[in-house]
Amino acid sequence: MDKCKVLFIPDNKTVVVEKGTTLLASAISCHIHLNAACGGDGVCGKCKVIIKKGDLHCEPSGKISLEERRRGIHLACQTLVESDMEVEIPHESRLDLSALSSDELKLRLRGVFAEAEDIFEAKPRLGDDIFSYAPLVSKFYLEILKPSFDDKTSDCERVARALEEKIGLVPHLTGLANIRKLGALLRSSDWKVTVAVAHKGIAPEIISIEPGDRADKNFGFAFDIGTTTISAQLVDLNKRVTLGTKATYNRQATFGADVISRIIYAQEEDGLEKLHHAVVDVVNEMIESFVEEYDIDLNDVMCLSVAGNTTMIHLLLRIDPTFIRQEPYVAVANLVPVFKASEVGVKVNPRGLLFCIPGVSSYVGGDITAGVVACDMHESKDINLLIDIGTNGEIALGNVDWMVSCAASAGPAFEGSGLTCGLRATRGAIETVKLQKNTLEVEIRTIGQDKPRGICGSGYIALLSELLRCGVLDKNGKINRTIKNKRVRSGDSGYEFVVIFKEDSSVEEDIVVTDADLDNLKRAKAAIYSGIAILVRHMEIDFNQIKKIFVAGGFGTSLNIDSSVQIGLLPDVVREKYIFVGNSSLAGARQSLLSTQASKICDEVAKNITTFELSADPQYMDEYMAALFFPHTDMARFPNVKYGN
Amino acid sequence: MDKCKVLFIPDNKTVVVEKGTTLLASAISCHIHLNAACGGDGVCGKCKVIIKKGDLHCEPSGKISLEERRRGIHLACQTLVESDMEVEIPHESRLDLSALSSDELKLRLRGVFAEAEDIFEAKPRLGDDIFSYAPLVSKFYLEILKPSFDDKTSDCERVARALEEKIGLVPHLTGLANIRKLGALLRSSDWKVTVAVAHKGIAPEIISIEPGDRADKNFGFAFDIGTTTISAQLVDLNKRVTLGTKATYNRQATFGADVISRIIYAQEEDGLEKLHHAVVDVVNEMIESFVEEYDIDLNDVMCLSVAGNTTMIHLLLRIDPTFIRQEPYVAVANLVPVFKASEVGVKVNPRGLLFCIPGVSSYVGGDITAGVVACDMHESKDINLLIDIGTNGEIALGNVDWMVSCAASAGPAFEGSGLTCGLRATRGAIETVKLQKNTLEVEIRTIGQDKPRGICGSGYIALLSELLRCGVLDKNGKINRTIKNKRVRSGDSGYEFVVIFKEDSSVEEDIVVTDADLDNLKRAKAAIYSGIAILVRHMEIDFNQIKKIFVAGGFGTSLNIDSSVQIGLLPDVVREKYIFVGNSSLAGARQSLLSTQASKICDEVAKNITTFELSADPQYMDEYMAALFFPHTDMARFPNVKYGN
Repeated sequence: MDKCKVLFIPDNKTVVVEKGTTLLASAISCHIHLNAACGGDGVCGKCKVIIKKGDLHCEPSGKISLEERRRGIHLACQTLVESDMEVEIPHESRLDLSALSSDELKLRLRGVFAEAEDIFEAKPRLGDDIFSYAPLVSKFYLEILKPSFDDKTSDCERVARALEEKIGLVPHLTGLANIRKLGALLRSSDWKVTVAVAHKGIAPEIISIEPGDRADKNFGFAFDIGTTTISAQLVDLNKRVTLGTKATYNRQATFGADVISRIIYAQEEDGLEKLHHAVVDVVNEMIESFVEEYDIDLNDVMCLSVAGNTTMIHLLLRIDPTFIRQEPYVAVANLVPVFKASEVGVKVNPRGLLFCIPGVSSYVGGDITAGVVACDMHESKDINLLIDIGTNGEIALGNVDWMVSCAASAGPAFEGSGLTCGLRATRGAIETVKLQKNTLEVEIRTIGQDKPRGICGSGYIALLSELLRCGVLDKNGKINRTIKNKRVRSGDSGYEFVVIFKEDSSVEEDIVVTDADLDNLKRAKAAIYSGIAILVRHMEIDFNQIKKIFVAGGFGTSLNIDSSVQIGLLPDVVREKYIFVGNSSLAGARQSLLSTQASKICDEVAKNITTFELSADPQYMDEYMAALFFPHTDMARFPNVKYGN
Repeated sequence: MDKCKVLFIPDNKTVVVEKGTTLLASAISCHIHLNAACGGDGVCGKCKVIIKKGDLHCEPSGKISLEERRRGIHLACQTLVESDMEVEIPHESRLDLSALSSDELKLRLRGVFAEAEDIFEAKPRLGDDIFSYAPLVSKFYLEILKPSFDDKTSDCERVARALEEKIGLVPHLTGLANIRKLGALLRSSDWKVTVAVAHKGIAPEIISIEPGDRADKNFGFAFDIGTTTISAQLVDLNKRVTLGTKATYNRQATFGADVISRIIYAQEEDGLEKLHHAVVDVVNEMIESFVEEYDIDLNDVMCLSVAGNTTMIHLLLRIDPTFIRQEPYVAVANLVPVFKASEVGVKVNPRGLLFCIPGVSSYVGGDITAGVVACDMHESKDINLLIDIGTNGEIALGNVDWMVSCAASAGPAFEGSGLTCGLRATRGAIETVKLQKNTLEVEIRTIGQDKPRGICGSGYIALLSELLRCGVLDKNGKINRTIKNKRVRSGDSGYEFVVIFKEDSSVEEDIVVTDADLDNLKRAKAAIYSGIAILVRHMEIDFNQIKKIFVAGGFGTSLNIDSSVQIGLLPDVVREKYIFVGNSSLAGARQSLLSTQASKICDEVAKNITTFELSADPQYMDEYMAALFFPHTDMARFPNVKYGN
C-alpha cells in the first residue's frame, strides 16, 4: 500500500497513513479530535477542514457551500488522502475542550445539592455498622505491636489484628503485591503504617499498605460519564469536601453523537477499543489535571465512583455493547462488580478501585440510579419525577413503594451539540435570551459574561420560547418567512434567525439558529416530554399528583422553567413543583463515594426500578407525534401557554 | 567485561558468560541443574564436572581426590571460567529427575490414606451447606433462560440467577475478562454454558464461564512442595479419583539443601527471583507432564491446593523469606489468601486459583497442618503424634483439645540427599538392607528391583540399624576400624563401608556409606528424636500416653519401624502404635482440594497449633546432645534396643 504523509496545522502534527484513509481517521490517529457528531457519516457537517496542499478524493456534500469549496474547505470524514497533504483544522471543527473555572462549574453542576460535607447530617441508624457512613475506601493509621518471641504472629495476620482492634471487624489482606512487599515495609517503617480499607463485600479488605501516617491523605473521584459531557469532582474523603469540579466533552463524540451511533461504531474493527480508549483518555487527563492543580499525590487516590448510562459504562469497561441495541435490548451487566481501576486503564493508585453505580436497564443507566438516590426519591412517600436532560434523556417517576423509568433519545441538542452554533455550557455560551417583540432585538447573557461564541442548552430553550412568543416560529417550529427583519434570512441550509451578528461575536461568523436546528430541538423536546407523559399515563396518575419535579442536566440554575414549559419540553404544572438539581448523576456518584451505605442503597434502588421500553411501546409513538408541535398538539395540556404576548 | 563461551556436554548446550563466572552459575543459566546441596559453597562436593577444554581458575578442594584432579574433575561451584570452555557433566552430578511410575509412586506416597473417592463417606452434618463436601472449585452446567421483552435482566445477573436456582446460594460473577466476553459467549453457545464456581469467601464466586456442557471436566492438583522433593497428584474433582501421582526433586536444591541456605540465597541479587522460578518451573513442568500423560485440557484445571513448609510457600509466592530467619522468626504470611495461579506464574486455566494450606509458624508449615487434618488428629480425643521426616522435620502432638508442634532441622539425609550415595526414593534406590553378622554379606532390595544406583532414606535407616547390630558401628556412629573385611576400608574422606561393589551396581562406582554420611545421619536422627522428646516433655506426658504415632515422609511402607527405633530415630514404644501415613502433607492438600469443609478445617487447625521454637529452647540442646548417640545416651529410654545379637 502507498503511504502518504499528512501535516495538520496549526497543531503541526504529521502522520503517515495509507493512501485512501479519511482525513478524519488520520487526525484521530495523531490525537487530534474533531467534532464529528454523526460518527463520520458526512451528515453533521461538523468536521470541516481546509486543504492547503495535496491531492484528495472527496464525495460531494450538501454541507459544504460553493464558497466554502472554493476556499478548499471539505468534510474530513468524506475526504480520502491521495498524496502527501497539508490540512488546516479551524477552531470550530475541534471538539471543544475548554473549561469553566472549577468554582463556576461546581456552582452550575451543584443544583440543589448540599456540599459533600453536609450530606451526612443524619445519625447512623440502629444496625448500621461503622462503615455505613464511611467512604468506599477508608485509611487507618496503625501502630502495630512488634513481633517478639512471645508473639510470633505472621506479618499479614499482625496487620489484620491491629486493624481489627481498631475497627472491630475482621479484615482480609488482599493482593499478592501487597504481601510481597509487606515484610520489608513493616520493618523499615518501624511498624507504623497506613492501610487503605475497601468495603467491597461483606468483610473489609485491606487493599494497600504504605509506611508512616498517611491516613489524612485519602482522596477519591466522582465521575459522571455522559454521552456528550464528562463531569468529575475531586473529593477529600476524610474532610468530606469537594475540592474541585471539572467538565469536558466526551471524546467519543468523534465516533458518533449518541449511544446508538457509538454502539454501531463499536462493531467496527477496533471500534470498541477506540471508544474505550477515547473515554479512558479523557478520564485520565481529567484526573491528571486535578492532581496537578490540587497538588495531591496520585497514589493517595484509592477510589472512583462512576455513574453513566449503560452504554457509557460498557464502553468505559470495554464490554461489547452490541446486545444493548439488539432485541430484546439486554445489557451485559447492569450491576457491575468492583474492579481495580488499573484493570480498566484508569490511572490512580495501582491498587485503587473503580465502583460503578449500577444501572437499571439497557437504556436507563447508573446515572438515573444515582439521581434517584441523590434526590431521595426512593425514600419519599410522595410521588416525585426526575428528568435528566442529556443526550440520552432519562426519566424516573415514583416513590418509596414503586419506581418506573424510561429513556428518551433526545440527542445531544440540549447539551449544545449537533447544532449549527451549539456550545456546551462553557465560557462565552449564550445561556439566556430575550427578544423585543417588534424589533426582534436580542438581549443575551453569556456564561462568564464573555463575548458570545455560541449557544448552550438553556440558551436554546430560552431562544425557542422567545421566538415562539414573538411569532418568529409557528406551531411547527418553522421560521415565519413573511417576517421582514435583517435577523430572519435564507441561509445555506434553509431559513435561519441571526441571534448575534459576527461583529458582536467572538467567532468569525454570525451566531444563528437554522430551520434544521429548530427541527432538531423540536424532536429533542418531543422525545423528553413524551417520555414523561408515557410514565404518567402508564402509572395512571395525573401530573398534579406529582409533588416535586427534579430537573437534572448540565444546565445548572440557568434553565428557565417558564421557557421550558412554553416550548413544551416540561409539563405545564405549578412552577413551584420544579426544582433544578444540577448534575444529579454526579451528586449520586459523590454520595456513593462518601458512604458505603449510599452505595448499597444504589444497588437496591437499581434493582427495584422498572423500565418501560419506549421503542416497543405503541402509545409512545402517538405521544411523540403529538409532541412534535409547540408546545403540543393537545393545547389543553398546556393551559398556561399562550404565544404572541 | 570479557565474554566466554561454555559448551556443556553431553547436553550440547552453549552459554556465553562473563569471564569469572562460576561453572555452576553458567550451567544454571542454560537450565542444566546440578546437584549442589550446599548452595555452591564448595562443601558438599556434589557438583563435580570434567573439564575437557579451556582455562579456568579453581580453588583447591578436599572434595576432589588427586586422581580425580588428574582426570580434569573439578567442583563446578568453585571453578571460574577464564576462557571458552568445554565441560562434561557426569550423570551423578545432576539433580536426579527420574521418576517412578505413577502407580508405584502413588502406592508409596499413599501410606494409610484412602483413595480420594473414599474420603468422604461421612454424611454432611446439620448446618453444612451444599459446598461443605464440594471441591474448592465446582463446575455447573446451566441452561439459561433467554432474554425476552418480558425479562430483560442483564447477562451477568441472568447467569447468576440461573446458578442461584441450581445451588440455592447467591453467587458473584467476577473478573472483567469474563464479563467482557460474556455477551458473545452466551449467544454463540445458545445460552448453554458451564460455570466454574469457587468457594473462596462467604459467597460462591463464578470464576469462569465456558460454552456448552463441560461440567464433567473438572480437574485439580494437590502439591506437596518439600525442601528436597516435590510431589503432586492430578485429581478428577467430580469423580473423586486420583488420576496420577508424580514426584521429583525441588530444583531449588541447586541453591542450597535446606531452608536456611535457601533463605540466605534469597537475599543475594536476584536470589529470590531465581528460587521462585526454580520451584515454579518444576511445578509447571509436572503439570505439563500430567496434562500430556492423562490427555486433559489445561483449561479444565481450575485449582491447585498446595502444602509446604513456610519457607517453601514464601518462595513459591515470591515473598521475601528473610524475616523467617531473623529473630524473633516471624513469617510474612502463614494464612495466605487465595490467588489466581497465574499471578504466581503457575500455568493452569488463566482464571484458575491457587490455595495454600495455612502454616502454623515460621518453621512449622502448611504441610504439618495438612498432615494433622489428614490424620484426623484434630478430632481425636486420644493424644496422637505426627512425625513428618523431611529436610525440615516437623512434629505435631495433640488431640481435639490441644496441639503443639516443633520443627527440627534434620537436613535432607532421610530424603537421600547430601550423602555420598544418597538417592531419592526412586528406581534403583536401595530401600532395605540385611547384613550377615559374621561375613558382613549384604542382602538388599531396591525400588523397582533394578540394579542398585544408590541408597534412599529407608535404606539408610535399615543400613544403620544393621551396621549397629553387627557391630560395624560403635555407639558414636563411627566405623569400627578394627574390623577386617573387604567392605570396611579407608576411603577418600575417612572410613567407609561398601554396601554394593561397583560390579553389582548400575553406576560406575562402589555404593558406600562414609563416616561423614554416618555423622550426617546421626545428626538428622538426633534432631528429630529430640524434637519429639521436647514436645512430650513440655506437655508433661509419657510416651505411653500417646495412642498413635503417625510417621510421614516419602518413605512409604518401606520404612522399618524396628530399624528406626534401633537407631534412636523413633521412640521405643509398642510397635503397634506406629502407623505409616506416607505423604500426609500431600494427602491433606488433596482433601482440601476435594472439600471446602476440609479447607476451612485447615484454617482453624493452623490457628490452634502452638509452636515451640527449638532454637530458643534451652532444654532442646541438652536433648539433642544426648541423642547424638546410637540409640541414645540414656539407654533407659530404649529398653528394647540391644545391639550385637
